[in-house]
Amino acid sequence: MPSQFDPPSGTRDFLAAEVERRERAFAVIRSVFARYGFEPLQTPAFERLDVLLGKYGEEGDKLVFKILRRGEHEASGEADLALRYDHTVPLARVAAAYGSQLPTPYKRYALGPVWRADRPGKDRYREFTQCDLDILGSQSLLADAEALCAHHDALAALGLPDFTILLNSRRVLAGLLEAFSVRPEIGAGVLASLDKLDKLAPAEVVSELAERGLAAGQAGDLVEALTEADSADRVRVALSKTEEGTAGLDEVDTMLSLLSGQVPAGRVVFTPRMVRGLSYYTGPIWEVTAAGVAGSLGGGGRYDHLIEQLGGPDVPATGSSIGIERMISLLPGADGATPARLDVAVTAMRSDLGTRSFALAGAARSAGLRASVYLGTSGKLGRQLKWASDSGARWCLIYGEQEHEAGTVTVRDMASGEQVQVPAAEVGTYLASAARGVRAAT
Amino acid sequence: MPSQFDPPSGTRDFLAAEVERRERAFAVIRSVFARYGFEPLQTPAFERLDVLLGKYGEEGDKLVFKILRRGEHEASGEADLALRYDHTVPLARVAAAYGSQLPTPYKRYALGPVWRADRPGKDRYREFTQCDLDILGSQSLLADAEALCAHHDALAALGLPDFTILLNSRRVLAGLLEAFSVRPEIGAGVLASLDKLDKLAPAEVVSELAERGLAAGQAGDLVEALTEADSADRVRVALSKTEEGTAGLDEVDTMLSLLSGQVPAGRVVFTPRMVRGLSYYTGPIWEVTAAGVAGSLGGGGRYDHLIEQLGGPDVPATGSSIGIERMISLLPGADGATPARLDVAVTAMRSDLGTRSFALAGAARSAGLRASVYLGTSGKLGRQLKWASDSGARWCLIYGEQEHEAGTVTVRDMASGEQVQVPAAEVGTYLASAARGVRAAT
Repeated sequence: MPSQFDPPSGTRDFLAAEVERRERAFAVIRSVFARYGFEPLQTPAFERLDVLLGKYGEEGDKLVFKILRRGEHEASGEADLALRYDHTVPLARVAAAYGSQLPTPYKRYALGPVWRADRPGKDRYREFTQCDLDILGSQSLLADAEALCAHHDALAALGLPDFTILLNSRRVLAGLLEAFSVRPEIGAGVLASLDKLDKLAPAEVVSELAERGLAAGQAGDLVEALTEADSADRVRVALSKTEEGTAGLDEVDTMLSLLSGQVPAGRVVFTPRMVRGLSYYTGPIWEVTAAGVAGSLGGGGRYDHLIEQLGGPDVPATGSSIGIERMISLLPGADGATPARLDVAVTAMRSDLGTRSFALAGAARSAGLRASVYLGTSGKLGRQLKWASDSGARWCLIYGEQEHEAGTVTVRDMASGEQVQVPAAEVGTYLASAARGVRAAT
Repeated sequence: MPSQFDPPSGTRDFLAAEVERRERAFAVIRSVFARYGFEPLQTPAFERLDVLLGKYGEEGDKLVFKILRRGEHEASGEADLALRYDHTVPLARVAAAYGSQLPTPYKRYALGPVWRADRPGKDRYREFTQCDLDILGSQSLLADAEALCAHHDALAALGLPDFTILLNSRRVLAGLLEAFSVRPEIGAGVLASLDKLDKLAPAEVVSELAERGLAAGQAGDLVEALTEADSADRVRVALSKTEEGTAGLDEVDTMLSLLSGQVPAGRVVFTPRMVRGLSYYTGPIWEVTAAGVAGSLGGGGRYDHLIEQLGGPDVPATGSSIGIERMISLLPGADGATPARLDVAVTAMRSDLGTRSFALAGAARSAGLRASVYLGTSGKLGRQLKWASDSGARWCLIYGEQEHEAGTVTVRDMASGEQVQVPAAEVGTYLASAARGVRAAT
């Protein structure tokens, strides 16, 4: 039941376990990207409105969160800023702003939230994390291969099970239209229909193509060539007859050759029917799919003119985007238990002994352990032990009147229930050694 | 000169070196907080407008970035959401929303951007990072001591040079007003004037106090007691005569006792004239100052009724806030050189050898090094070596026709200029060993 204390529709509060799970995944991704020489870029949460509007089409513009002007201008009801909608428009602005200060090529990744006023739904949020890596300033297929390979390595390092990367080229698609004599003016529409082959039955796509103006036989042949088991071979034959198709095949084969040995065999598959909706792609394109998961888990491709269209310099570009929110929900441990907050819990039995208890927690921290003293009001040991147990602590240090008089601390192993007396001055050393023992055993 | 490609006024683009410097500092802070058992909390960038408005006073409300309603409601010019202004109001909402799911006490930290439409200036941004740690649900001074100590340890771990933490208590201040017979109705104003003792000359504060209605002698005595070298002792004598003052002194002395041994001697100093502007504090208060730096670098204190006032449950609370933007500008290495992007740069001399070059970069990455192949169009070795040098790579792998025929790779040490021939299949092992040598030597 929604309450007045819920976060705004389409957004989430991340409590500790979820933050830690997400940050672990982000750290893995950052580390893989760094190994490829990609460097981080962080841009502001908002941009000037004119930087964003007109870049995402009419539908996209409607989903931009606009920020009201301030002060005396607030009453105008006008906006002058807007929340970041993706990481690509800010990248185009940064490339224009810092041009010569940036390395050539500029290999950067962006990992952070973007905001879209979409209707919230399962796995669809208004605030969600996007993770992009892009290379500006290289025409080389080596750059496309690096982007794809870095994306692949990130998924592999995250432990995503059983995924495949579909590879194609926009030039293959152009050659395909030519080979099947599709008139150029309906080419884009035909590709949009072919893009549905992973959702619709072949016959449905055939009739959609017919509606778009393809002859029935032509539509049937095209769909058959793309859906039969030997699709890649059939398409290769068809493509070899056109110049653009031959060039597209060359691109795909060069990519496959570069990736061989770098990714497991069969991981990257030439898939001529993969269109990757967005019209700005100009060369190789790829898309990640996983067994049992509908739709794509991210992908990318070459987009040589987009940065200029978005207001940046005219540079060739390629990149890949990890569908990070869906990814995270698929990773092992998504429903894991609450992690331990503490290694060492310290009782505070009498307020006049607080300084000693506080110092014991300090000694445990100095030994590299997470430790805290009991902060509640109960003087009862049972209550304090329950707190120690709730916090996930492996050890509880009990320091009461007896221990105070004896100059010792009772160290309780919360796993076994065993208790030992340790001289107060030696507690740090004792705990460090016990922690080494636990680590060695696990 | 501002350009159309600059980020919006008061915001910043963080390029690689700056991101890395900031993230390193954030990682240190997170690790210290975790050692105290503080857990992370991440709330959305925006909240519903009614959650935020009315919480920061009239001036604060003006500085809130408001988000325009969307769709058909956009034309109304009304806002329904607003960007997070701090981490405390979201904390109050989370405490109300998740109450029993949260541990008791709830020790959380929040580290992330907040947005305020302030006039931009030196060290004052419209988007800036705030870092707060708070403990909800404990009345114990042990909680105040933990918050202060965790803040202290974070600064120490960051390497902030020469800092001091001023300690006081709201109850000391209340006792002080009583001891100097200040009428309760002008108490808040008197404290606001005393708060200026670190900026104004004593005589100026005395005359301000006189304007507020204090007798001239009374104002002079009060300021003298707070500014003389033996201020703490004088104030102790005065406070011991009132009940509230005695209780305040007890608080301060308990804090000092808890902290002794946990922080270096002289690091935390009882400072009766430290008021810490915000009126919501109810118990101990502290503020960080550093030699040669005007103003505060953060601080905190107990605020037992604020969470309820902000719409949360009625829980006792204490916390501390690191003035993170100023901190970062003071840390060693603020003006450091661009860090290396790569360990290993691989030439790509001929396009037909691209697959081998790409595989060599893969071998270097498998050895745990950051590696990339040359992505430019020049086939000239000199040009490719310049790229290798610009990227900060320690080694350049040269793979041209000669190497191709010999089955070797030329490994150039970019520091010494020395080159060795290494069998192609052994490059990964060779580089791993060379990297161990470099690490051992530094």
